[in-house]
Amino acid sequence: MTHIRLTPLALSLPATVPFVGPETQERARGAAFTARLGANESVFGPSPAAITAMAETPQWMYGDPESFDLRMALAAHHGCSPDNIMVGEGIDGLLGYLVRMFVATGDAVVTSAGAYPTFNYHVAGFGGTLHTVPYVNDREDPASLFAKAAEVDAKLVYLANPDNPMGTVHSGAEIARALDALPAGTLLVLDEAYVECAPECTALSLPVDDPRVIRMRTFSKVYGLAGARVGYAIGHPDLITAFHKVRNHFGMNRAAQAGALAALEDQPYLAQVQDQIVQARDRISQIARSCGLTPIPSATNFVTIDCGRDAVFAKAVLDGLIAQGIFVRMPFIAPQNRCIRISCGTPEMLDALATALPVALESAEKG
Amino acid sequence: MTHIRLTPLALSLPATVPFVGPETQERARGAAFTARLGANESVFGPSPAAITAMAETPQWMYGDPESFDLRMALAAHHGCSPDNIMVGEGIDGLLGYLVRMFVATGDAVVTSAGAYPTFNYHVAGFGGTLHTVPYVNDREDPASLFAKAAEVDAKLVYLANPDNPMGTVHSGAEIARALDALPAGTLLVLDEAYVECAPECTALSLPVDDPRVIRMRTFSKVYGLAGARVGYAIGHPDLITAFHKVRNHFGMNRAAQAGALAALEDQPYLAQVQDQIVQARDRISQIARSCGLTPIPSATNFVTIDCGRDAVFAKAVLDGLIAQGIFVRMPFIAPQNRCIRISCGTPEMLDALATALPVALESAEKG
Repeated sequence: MTHIRLTPLALSLPATVPFVGPETQERARGAAFTARLGANESVFGPSPAAITAMAETPQWMYGDPESFDLRMALAAHHGCSPDNIMVGEGIDGLLGYLVRMFVATGDAVVTSAGAYPTFNYHVAGFGGTLHTVPYVNDREDPASLFAKAAEVDAKLVYLANPDNPMGTVHSGAEIARALDALPAGTLLVLDEAYVECAPECTALSLPVDDPRVIRMRTFSKVYGLAGARVGYAIGHPDLITAFHKVRNHFGMNRAAQAGALAALEDQPYLAQVQDQIVQARDRISQIARSCGLTPIPSATNFVTIDCGRDAVFAKAVLDGLIAQGIFVRMPFIAPQNRCIRISCGTPEMLDALATALPVALESAEKG
Repeated sequence: MTHIRLTPLALSLPATVPFVGPETQERARGAAFTARLGANESVFGPSPAAITAMAETPQWMYGDPESFDLRMALAAHHGCSPDNIMVGEGIDGLLGYLVRMFVATGDAVVTSAGAYPTFNYHVAGFGGTLHTVPYVNDREDPASLFAKAAEVDAKLVYLANPDNPMGTVHSGAEIARALDALPAGTLLVLDEAYVECAPECTALSLPVDDPRVIRMRTFSKVYGLAGARVGYAIGHPDLITAFHKVRNHFGMNRAAQAGALAALEDQPYLAQVQDQIVQARDRISQIARSCGLTPIPSATNFVTIDCGRDAVFAKAVLDGLIAQGIFVRMPFIAPQNRCIRISCGTPEMLDALATALPVALESAEKG
């Protein structure tokens, strides 16, 4: 195809998708899921104020390329300057820009084996070389991440706190202490997507101007706006400004900006969702235990359940749930892939889970 | 700042924005615009069915990463396979992916001097070298674009038909004939953002599988959904598949997908907007002529007005309109920048324009 002359890098990349979407699975199985518990969305939905704000936003106008109102509100919320904040098309979009800014062909990047695949997708997409370290006791391990970064002269090191897919957590103070070992040429990409449902001490306790780290936050999880695609980065102004070199300036959906602003301003609703998440986590854990499985303590809006055997068994349990219309996912890599991962659901969805899990287990045990 | 080690390419790029947004201008002047006629948005808004569909879409779910329903409907609309269609975050987002796939440092790209700045922004952002040819009689010139592409061995050549910022047009048959001169190593990026308000013969009259060209379409213009960020590319399946190597798979807003689908299905509403655009173009042209200015015949949802002198004068007219609360823009490059560009407005907005333009002209003539 002579007219299609991709770059050598693009030619080398596979056409892929970091996650198969639930709609794709629904089309394949010919039926909708009855409980959508696989993508760590918030079934509790966003603040009604957000829904109203989005409905009232004129769709014919492009969004403000500065996301000014939202950025101002976020700065006030975090007690920092708007110059410390970059709003973007979800954390996925911001990670793409960040990797593009830092990673050229052959540059080293470090993450944990089995951590967020979309980050890895971006690293591969810009020609970076990914180095991994194992989880330690189902937690990402800052010490080994930063040691590996020093060893390979990494441009970026990725750490999610709380972690996805395991739901485990470090205190922000632990991360801050570990940062003493971060090499001078490495930037920590701290993904705090789930921080709003973690203990308060989880957020990194360092000044937002600290040039060693960029934090990623999102309205997709506890704020309940996954469909709207709004994330933001918090960091040193030099780093925030650099996004203007590469970002899609008019990429932010206008209604999404308005919805995120309204969601941010409705902290009482957020507190209510936080309560619902705690209750749902307890219920999922109880369902798991009642089946003889081990829930891993979670600081997120999902619970990862240790199925007690290998990946083949966990996959059989997962398939058994999916066959019963319960959409769930599982970690990709050993030893974490002995688990399945279940997002918080409404009481009705968790009733369905409670019914389906024993059936799935029995079927998996039969092989 | 030792931890911030941008790539050499990123370091070389300026922090910039292809267009200053109207909200930025409103904040600077301390007052809202009374007529927003500068961004070629559709003041007539989207189909009411689109607004309803968006309001009814749950915001807590991620969008389908395949945009399956929308892609199927677009395939039916265009009489092609869904494998010929890639949905993305507006044409801006799709252009970014396309440039990323084709352009590595030093690769040649061709466009017209003064054509769409966001395309140029992406080319610079991936290290490409941009070569330009002049407009001919206020029209982009396929022959000189393709000749330049041959001369510099361009990977991509950009052509908007109808053109922005001039509003001029070629027939699709003319473009098809000109393609005989497209060099074998060059892909034509044919931006048809405005095709829905152009004469029917404007759309390229070649099979969608033709590997020489990728077409860009959008819901931001005549469909009235600029705030939602939905565009799509039509092309050879090999080219469409390649987007999966680099795109942000979960980047599409869920409500936006639903809104675009509903807008597409409401072709009677589209026809009504097309009529309103024709009327608004006539009115803008008449206002221009009544002030002694020359409207350039338009196949778009805006009218570019030749102010009859140089760029300094046109800029003074533009500033005079902005001072009166009328947001308009103008071409960036000579000789097109002797003009100002006015988007179609409601009758009330154009009444405001009719009042403001003579005042702006008088003020500009005084210097």
